[in-house]
Amino acid sequence: MSIGIVSPQVMHFAEPLPLQGGSALADYSLTYETYGTLNADKSNAVLVCHALNASHHVAGVYADDPDNVGWWDNMVGPGKSLDTDRFFVIGVNNLGSCFGSTGPMHANPATGKPYGADFPVVTVEDWVNAQARLADRLGITCFAAVMGGSLGGMQALAWSMMYPDRLRHCLVIASTPKLSAQNIAFNDVARQAILTDPQYHGGDFYAHGVVPKNGLRVARMVGHITYLSDDDMAEKFGRDLRSGQYQFGYGVDFEIESYLRYQGDKFSTYFDANTYLLITKALDYFDPAREFGGDLAKALACTKAKFLLVSFTTDWRFSPERSREMVQALVANKRRVSYAEIDAPHGHDAFLLDDARYMKVVREYYGSIWTELQQEGRA
Amino acid sequence: MSIGIVSPQVMHFAEPLPLQGGSALADYSLTYETYGTLNADKSNAVLVCHALNASHHVAGVYADDPDNVGWWDNMVGPGKSLDTDRFFVIGVNNLGSCFGSTGPMHANPATGKPYGADFPVVTVEDWVNAQARLADRLGITCFAAVMGGSLGGMQALAWSMMYPDRLRHCLVIASTPKLSAQNIAFNDVARQAILTDPQYHGGDFYAHGVVPKNGLRVARMVGHITYLSDDDMAEKFGRDLRSGQYQFGYGVDFEIESYLRYQGDKFSTYFDANTYLLITKALDYFDPAREFGGDLAKALACTKAKFLLVSFTTDWRFSPERSREMVQALVANKRRVSYAEIDAPHGHDAFLLDDARYMKVVREYYGSIWTELQQEGRA
Repeated sequence: MSIGIVSPQVMHFAEPLPLQGGSALADYSLTYETYGTLNADKSNAVLVCHALNASHHVAGVYADDPDNVGWWDNMVGPGKSLDTDRFFVIGVNNLGSCFGSTGPMHANPATGKPYGADFPVVTVEDWVNAQARLADRLGITCFAAVMGGSLGGMQALAWSMMYPDRLRHCLVIASTPKLSAQNIAFNDVARQAILTDPQYHGGDFYAHGVVPKNGLRVARMVGHITYLSDDDMAEKFGRDLRSGQYQFGYGVDFEIESYLRYQGDKFSTYFDANTYLLITKALDYFDPAREFGGDLAKALACTKAKFLLVSFTTDWRFSPERSREMVQALVANKRRVSYAEIDAPHGHDAFLLDDARYMKVVREYYGSIWTELQQEGRA
Repeated sequence: MSIGIVSPQVMHFAEPLPLQGGSALADYSLTYETYGTLNADKSNAVLVCHALNASHHVAGVYADDPDNVGWWDNMVGPGKSLDTDRFFVIGVNNLGSCFGSTGPMHANPATGKPYGADFPVVTVEDWVNAQARLADRLGITCFAAVMGGSLGGMQALAWSMMYPDRLRHCLVIASTPKLSAQNIAFNDVARQAILTDPQYHGGDFYAHGVVPKNGLRVARMVGHITYLSDDDMAEKFGRDLRSGQYQFGYGVDFEIESYLRYQGDKFSTYFDANTYLLITKALDYFDPAREFGGDLAKALACTKAKFLLVSFTTDWRFSPERSREMVQALVANKRRVSYAEIDAPHGHDAFLLDDARYMKVVREYYGSIWTELQQEGRA
């Protein structure tokens, strides 16, 4: 059952947020949604962190936009794996996004004009700090769980290191402790496509009334390829031709071309180019082991949470091997870790899709969290 | 030992070449090079077919450009795996290329202006037909071998089907009987980057005195990622930073970014955008099993050559699995096939690199071809 109609809320922060890059955001807002009911001692809150092109809209629909279903609606809702009849779930739009929270298209208070490319390059750690302030305001001192997939999983992992006393459980799905050279390479192709689009205007395209559509389109196409598995693409599209025969030109021959161009076109109509740039940088920069000489176990030594990690066999973007690295580093610290490697054909995108085994693993994990709360008389 | 100084030659063809796409090239030239000496009965000729961004310049250097070493100089030369003391080796620049043979930047005889995007989309089969005409002129009725890597391997395979009596051996290295949906997807990203670059001017950029540099650059960057293995990229670049620390901007942070941008920049200075488009189309279209309902064994039933196939374990562009499909289809036809799967870390690029086991496999195979010729009194 879906959570039904939901409404986003906005929280304004006047105290400056210091950023990892050295600057600060003087003044900012976070857009967020909540589902379920916060219990009396505020111990049943779960923070859900979003990935590259998602938002605070995790579940449900809007009254005025009933087709706009939250990106993890299959996971979060009454009776679902993350059961909103039990837990109070929060989705926060990250700073720099283009879906509500303060971002590059908003006015820079210093100039009165849109930030554009001057919006600071924020990091996973900056997002976590901003989320912690939002939790402070809501009076949540310790989350029952922080959870995320992909880039959202990085935020969950960062929570376990930055605020070890503020989460009891950490759920890291289809994620990685750092991007590989190949991951960074794909991100940089996407960035170069945007940055070299003449319509980008050095990030100041708002003033010109245009968008770097071509750059965004190519960026999305290349990104999309990395979200799908080779096998899944072969299964869905193979070498199917749009019109049954070769065109001997540069229009559409293959269904896969049509699909990717459609995805690219659609993306370029709603996603902000500066947001794309900064989010891919946040991905590239995330590397908590870096200040520990590359030793992930040392980086995770400060954690106190219990962990669930999930990976998907055909995910070649953040492969199971990357999750196993995290599991090993946590086990080396004697943390309690559950790990599921799901044999699924859908590549990286699998973390967003229905898969009975995956949903069951998460459901049972939240069941155990609920049992913990009950045993403590909190639920 | 290198073959030393070589010179390209040009052969002009006045008879029209009918093309698979339905049109014809009325008049064209092929640029080619030869190494070694053709024997009396012209039985020691080996045709080497080139891949996407290579040319007829297979081995040696030019007198006026001593740093311009042929792309397979490590493979072809006196005493090398393909020994030019024994064999007469021919490299032919494919039609539509930008390195000499008739291509999009040459004048269309119908208009007197550069073909541009009007240059017909040629196919692997068209190239093979053009190569066969060049062989006719040279009086070579049957090649000792036709050999190629990647797209060159497709041409070798096409030779074995289109002219089964004109080659005794077929060497197909790091190739595939058809592109996967993922391969096509990457090609289309590259094409879209070029086609949507405003400097492309619908293919007519020559008249504007510009090049679609940004599009070519992104195209090359994405292509280059698919030539390298994830492991190799991790080994060579990892997460190494250019200046030792994050820049928190959109310049260069990581060495891999610097490397790819350099490769893209360099490529955009010498490669023709229309050539890139048409060669990627030739790759996409190659699918000899297509007219046999997808049955590769049926497509290969007409072959008469003996085969050597080589693949490389970390090649995720044209993986060993694709070579094994060809081996199985040939074995199903009771063809004599040798197959080597080389455990090499360098991804698709491995076919161009020195690897002792790889070079030994090819050397021994050509040794057996030479023994055959000797036994027949031809060598």
